[in-house]
Amino acid sequence: MIRAIDIIRKKRDGEKLGKKEIEFIVKGALSGEIPDYQLSALLMAIYFRGMDLNETTALTEAMIKSGETLEWSFLKKPTVDKHSTGGVGDKVSIALAPLVASTNLVYVPMISGRALGHTGGTLDKLESIRGYRTNLSIEEFKEVVKNVGCSIIGQTDKLVPADRKLYALRDATSTIESIPLIASSILSKKLAEGVDAIVLDVKVGSGAFMPKLKEAKELAMLMVEIGKKMDKKIIALITNMEQPLGKAVGNALEVREAIDILKGNGPSDATELTLRLGSYMLYAVEVVKSPEEGYKKLKNNLYNGDGLRRLRRMIEAHGGDWNYILSDDFIRTKYVYHITASTNGYISQLETYKIGIASQILGAGRSKMDDVIDHKVGIIVNKKIGDKVDEGDIIFEVRANDENRLNQAVEILENSYKIVKRKVQQLPLIYEIIE
Amino acid sequence: MIRAIDIIRKKRDGEKLGKKEIEFIVKGALSGEIPDYQLSALLMAIYFRGMDLNETTALTEAMIKSGETLEWSFLKKPTVDKHSTGGVGDKVSIALAPLVASTNLVYVPMISGRALGHTGGTLDKLESIRGYRTNLSIEEFKEVVKNVGCSIIGQTDKLVPADRKLYALRDATSTIESIPLIASSILSKKLAEGVDAIVLDVKVGSGAFMPKLKEAKELAMLMVEIGKKMDKKIIALITNMEQPLGKAVGNALEVREAIDILKGNGPSDATELTLRLGSYMLYAVEVVKSPEEGYKKLKNNLYNGDGLRRLRRMIEAHGGDWNYILSDDFIRTKYVYHITASTNGYISQLETYKIGIASQILGAGRSKMDDVIDHKVGIIVNKKIGDKVDEGDIIFEVRANDENRLNQAVEILENSYKIVKRKVQQLPLIYEIIE
Repeated sequence: MIRAIDIIRKKRDGEKLGKKEIEFIVKGALSGEIPDYQLSALLMAIYFRGMDLNETTALTEAMIKSGETLEWSFLKKPTVDKHSTGGVGDKVSIALAPLVASTNLVYVPMISGRALGHTGGTLDKLESIRGYRTNLSIEEFKEVVKNVGCSIIGQTDKLVPADRKLYALRDATSTIESIPLIASSILSKKLAEGVDAIVLDVKVGSGAFMPKLKEAKELAMLMVEIGKKMDKKIIALITNMEQPLGKAVGNALEVREAIDILKGNGPSDATELTLRLGSYMLYAVEVVKSPEEGYKKLKNNLYNGDGLRRLRRMIEAHGGDWNYILSDDFIRTKYVYHITASTNGYISQLETYKIGIASQILGAGRSKMDDVIDHKVGIIVNKKIGDKVDEGDIIFEVRANDENRLNQAVEILENSYKIVKRKVQQLPLIYEIIE
Repeated sequence: MIRAIDIIRKKRDGEKLGKKEIEFIVKGALSGEIPDYQLSALLMAIYFRGMDLNETTALTEAMIKSGETLEWSFLKKPTVDKHSTGGVGDKVSIALAPLVASTNLVYVPMISGRALGHTGGTLDKLESIRGYRTNLSIEEFKEVVKNVGCSIIGQTDKLVPADRKLYALRDATSTIESIPLIASSILSKKLAEGVDAIVLDVKVGSGAFMPKLKEAKELAMLMVEIGKKMDKKIIALITNMEQPLGKAVGNALEVREAIDILKGNGPSDATELTLRLGSYMLYAVEVVKSPEEGYKKLKNNLYNGDGLRRLRRMIEAHGGDWNYILSDDFIRTKYVYHITASTNGYISQLETYKIGIASQILGAGRSKMDDVIDHKVGIIVNKKIGDKVDEGDIIFEVRANDENRLNQAVEILENSYKIVKRKVQQLPLIYEIIE
């Protein structure tokens, strides 16, 4: 007879758990037959002892089985999705999904998350668009994907309910930061979408959940290997989050920047990452022979406006008001405050976590689950690491609707950057590609 | 603001917890304000990261404060107790408490536990005596201690309720085997008794909860140091549990052996350990100048019958029927089965855990909380490690009331010992004394 207490002891003592034991845990977690106090003890033991590839694959599979999975075989072309581990200013999905779909080679059914801690969430960003519905039914989701080629919606209760259960428990017991638990949480959600391939954007640096390259790489490699075990093509890009991606941090501001990316006049880092991730999405499902071929196609669709038109179609298919996005009102705030350089030199550091927290304080994120988001507020990061600045240059433009919040955010931002006299190298965008 | 999740993270990351944080946890555990799933995650983090002397002392103190504590200042002599970490055949308390009290130099108020796993419990043994009440009220307990000099009762709900809460959670989450958690659990219960000094019998070997000397020593040293921090004299004897203590294993059988010890004709190891523990009890509260002086006094009270008379007074004060103990009926069982040596040689091994389990299977212990104990059944261990045996000599006498249980126990016992041809050394009784 399998018993939770024996499974806890095994993991505590560094032994491997078998597939049946892991299935027993996931089923028991969801049904409530295994009490939370045993689950959390097990999660902490996993935090310390880890799980190997077989265990993490078994956990991923058991979590997928805990709920429904989607099926896209009615579409005649491959499906592919991208997942980011989260960062500051990461609006890539909003430009990427329509850009990749605009090639008409693949479908992009994307299920996204909300702001978490200091990082933003694609769903919150899309909800800054008047009318945009993130909570489509599965049938509506399929319909939009079929008609438009892409759709971005929120998590549904029907997919991977065991992950929601375990994630809430991890969040309450300081067991979030476990590589196998992160890997199985991400992959179970993405694989339950039923897509043919996944491109992972594993972020590393001061604005990411993984500050160190070594751990980010470990996570990326584990997820790619799980993909192999499960016969799903997974490619991971390890990318830089030592500074915000692009310039805009905040919800409506980031939607605007996504449009800039699709117009071909977005910030170079965010544009380049969009193209690179997209090219690997096309490559992963083998509709192009190389990432380079995919890159060319996507770049072309940037400049010919196909990507932008596809974004408009997607937003309108979700009930969103396109003209509202283009109006001044979309990003109008009561206060616009400039933080300027007090000296000449080069930006040597941007503490991205602090910038994320400042944005959260302005109202762009949540510090409690039931905080209401102010979609218009945010920060424009005008200078990036390596940029030359002269005294008086604007480093941050802070857009706020509340004076008190503005003051708090400004105080944090003023301590979030460094200017040095010596020339500073720009940061690499992508560290490594693992497939 | 102190939050449980931050305390979990600190301990997870190997940091020390402060006194206030530990008090917060213990209070929250008892009030229910901290949910069990956070407590069990913390307990598992403590399992992996440990706690230092200051933390374990703070935990011990906070647990003591969670309930009432006893007060003995109305007595005009010191109070002293003994605690054993548990073993097989450990009936010492039943002889020890009255023997030490019979010196009239100290009082011995003893709160004991029940059978746990493969080990026996003093309370269950005393309950084999018709009429013996282990659940005296605190007032009755004080009265018996005052009048008789000693009393042995069971845990009360009023003392250290936080330990009961945490112990149940540890039991369900495989976090029992943590040295600081064991130390604080033992000491909080003993110190809440309000005694002036404690002698600890820390058992090590195949029949103990600590199979290795290194860990037993670590536990013993930690408890002695906590005593110093709390201004309580604690002396720990690290003693041998590679074989059952004495010969009798089982409840009524062990009461009988305790009487044999007090008559001066008990097994030499159990008798010697009783005298040694007792001599340190007298020494710990400074009513004798040396353990040796205490030893002489106790040995004298063995041979003059004072110890035995004191046991009778204690049992009768608790409502127990002395004559019943002496009757044949007290230990009469349906089956008496002899396991005999199939060869000549020397006993080289007794797997004490197995002997404990065999006794439990006979009905002397519980495998589930609500199992009913058969007080009469048990095992007489006729040969000890180092003893010479001839073919046909009785090694175990198995006393049972159920044929099925008898067969199971016999099968285990037949595989629990080894006979070798070469001469085998007898085992030391006491490894080390730590004060």
